[in-house]
Amino acid sequence: MSRVHNFCAGPAALPEAVLKRAQEEMLEWQGQGASVMELSHRSKAFVDVMEQAESRLRRLLEVPDEYAVLFQQGGASQQFAAVPLNLSSEADSADYLVTGQWSKKAFAEGKRFVNAHCVADGSVDNFMSIPSRDDWSFSEGRYVHYCPNETIGGLEFSAIPAVESPLVADMSSTLLSRPIDVTQFGVIYAGAQKNIGPAGLALVMVRKDLLGQARPSCPAMLNWDTAAANGSMYNTPPTFAVYLTGLVFEWLESMGGLEVMGDINARKAARLYGQIDNSGFFSNPVSESARSWMNVPFTLADSALDKVFLEEAEQAGLTNLKGHRSVGGMRASIYNAVPETAVEALCNFMSEFEQRYG
Amino acid sequence: MSRVHNFCAGPAALPEAVLKRAQEEMLEWQGQGASVMELSHRSKAFVDVMEQAESRLRRLLEVPDEYAVLFQQGGASQQFAAVPLNLSSEADSADYLVTGQWSKKAFAEGKRFVNAHCVADGSVDNFMSIPSRDDWSFSEGRYVHYCPNETIGGLEFSAIPAVESPLVADMSSTLLSRPIDVTQFGVIYAGAQKNIGPAGLALVMVRKDLLGQARPSCPAMLNWDTAAANGSMYNTPPTFAVYLTGLVFEWLESMGGLEVMGDINARKAARLYGQIDNSGFFSNPVSESARSWMNVPFTLADSALDKVFLEEAEQAGLTNLKGHRSVGGMRASIYNAVPETAVEALCNFMSEFEQRYG
Repeated sequence: MSRVHNFCAGPAALPEAVLKRAQEEMLEWQGQGASVMELSHRSKAFVDVMEQAESRLRRLLEVPDEYAVLFQQGGASQQFAAVPLNLSSEADSADYLVTGQWSKKAFAEGKRFVNAHCVADGSVDNFMSIPSRDDWSFSEGRYVHYCPNETIGGLEFSAIPAVESPLVADMSSTLLSRPIDVTQFGVIYAGAQKNIGPAGLALVMVRKDLLGQARPSCPAMLNWDTAAANGSMYNTPPTFAVYLTGLVFEWLESMGGLEVMGDINARKAARLYGQIDNSGFFSNPVSESARSWMNVPFTLADSALDKVFLEEAEQAGLTNLKGHRSVGGMRASIYNAVPETAVEALCNFMSEFEQRYG
Repeated sequence: MSRVHNFCAGPAALPEAVLKRAQEEMLEWQGQGASVMELSHRSKAFVDVMEQAESRLRRLLEVPDEYAVLFQQGGASQQFAAVPLNLSSEADSADYLVTGQWSKKAFAEGKRFVNAHCVADGSVDNFMSIPSRDDWSFSEGRYVHYCPNETIGGLEFSAIPAVESPLVADMSSTLLSRPIDVTQFGVIYAGAQKNIGPAGLALVMVRKDLLGQARPSCPAMLNWDTAAANGSMYNTPPTFAVYLTGLVFEWLESMGGLEVMGDINARKAARLYGQIDNSGFFSNPVSESARSWMNVPFTLADSALDKVFLEEAEQAGLTNLKGHRSVGGMRASIYNAVPETAVEALCNFMSEFEQRYG
């Protein structure tokens, strides 16, 4: 057995170099005679790990000093509650763009804490396109929440929407896949398990002038002020996940940073969508202008062949290609840690499959 | 460099056998051609990991079917809010025993969500003893919260307090150190990073008749009903932490289970307290009947020697013996993964140190 080409939507593939480093250091980390996960989070050694991870993230994304960087737990789903609890009072309204399963979940959770207003609802088009800007309506609420890339549907905003209120983005599946202009956002958050690191860690970047508004009823572990005041160490952080994430940041720097990653990811997406578009056998249901760079769903002309496709792909070392249960068909997630060679191997397999069954 | 004797209070030492297994499987886990942390949490392979972990925990602690077992994030601190949000309404009262830094924190967080009543306050004795039962007063609230073992002060209840309302216990630093009668509790929760696994995971065991009471304002990620209804997979769980924790459970079974661990831990504590008591040089400030099996704070006759003690101990491969910053002095945490040989080595070092400096 050797390493497969892993197209999992998340928890997703990690860079092999990162896993090898973690493997080497598993029992004895940097002269400590212990694993990094056996160290006090308040030890100088671990505080350095956390600070270096933050520094690397700031360099990679050019995060200005005006933003706090927080390491949180509970995934993006926990931030669905943290956002209204930190940015609004119960009497306020807030605006939500609903363009897929994840922004829909954020909206549903938001409703429990704020007068959540739906700016636009993509479900009328089965989330296959971004509703036209002309049809958006705002409540002029405390913030505008959206999900730039919907992992399940494979739908992505091609540009950052210009809005009046602070923009809050769930970037779980795109953060670090290319450069972004952080200053366009009030808050960016992301579960780590796609492009960032292992499951169990979430990154939050908050413009500092938005801090200091948390409700008294905000649990301490969801309170960004508490996290910011304590260097994300109000309690024990998920130390191993932070360490691994730091190694991913280091790997991204060694690759040349986010400009380079953006170029690679653009090529990967172009190669795979090209494979789909140039066939009469595979198709992608998403509106062309809203196609995701990261999550590429596709269907076969004959869905009875789905099972055969998945089985033969797995035998060829191409794994986790099954579409989300709510969508069906296939989905290839091609995050940072999925190399161009993996996409090439998938495309070659698709060609062969089409020749045999098409 | 080799592995040290690590007395860290948490994140604490893990069994070497567990780390070695994780190291071996880091890049290719069980024929998957990928790390366990690169697999979908909804894959059969990972669901099996989670189910096996739960089964092993149930066997180890003899957890009856009447209890739900939940894998949560955010540590015990997140449960400080989850407890009132799941067990009470804002108008209710709840009773808190305050016997150290952690139960004090739980009480402070509880106050924000419920009329939290202090049953007894050990701070009058600087948390060096458990307040006499005769002085306890209850509000007859929805639950009684306590912390059986205070990690920072090294204070432990020698018996489970008999109370009227459902008993809620923060067992972060004692769970799995010996058998317990789960049926005495309404809720047991614990951050993993002491006896259970790596930081970033918390275990919650809830008697099922206490479910179904979560407030509408309880964030989904703190809602035990949501976790129970979704097999702790409402969103992506911290998969690597769950896997490692399962390996720790497997190791505990291979050691002979909790009766055996309890005997070993009793011997370790007796050896170390004996070393302290039989010296005129070291002392332990905690009331003898309330001494912790897990966290043993001690001071030197001459506190000017603290630094020398810590430095020489570290040179001798005995690490993380510094007391908590709020207490000072020394503290040896002797959880499951700290073997008797480590305690023996510490005691021998203490003897030598006393001979040289005493």
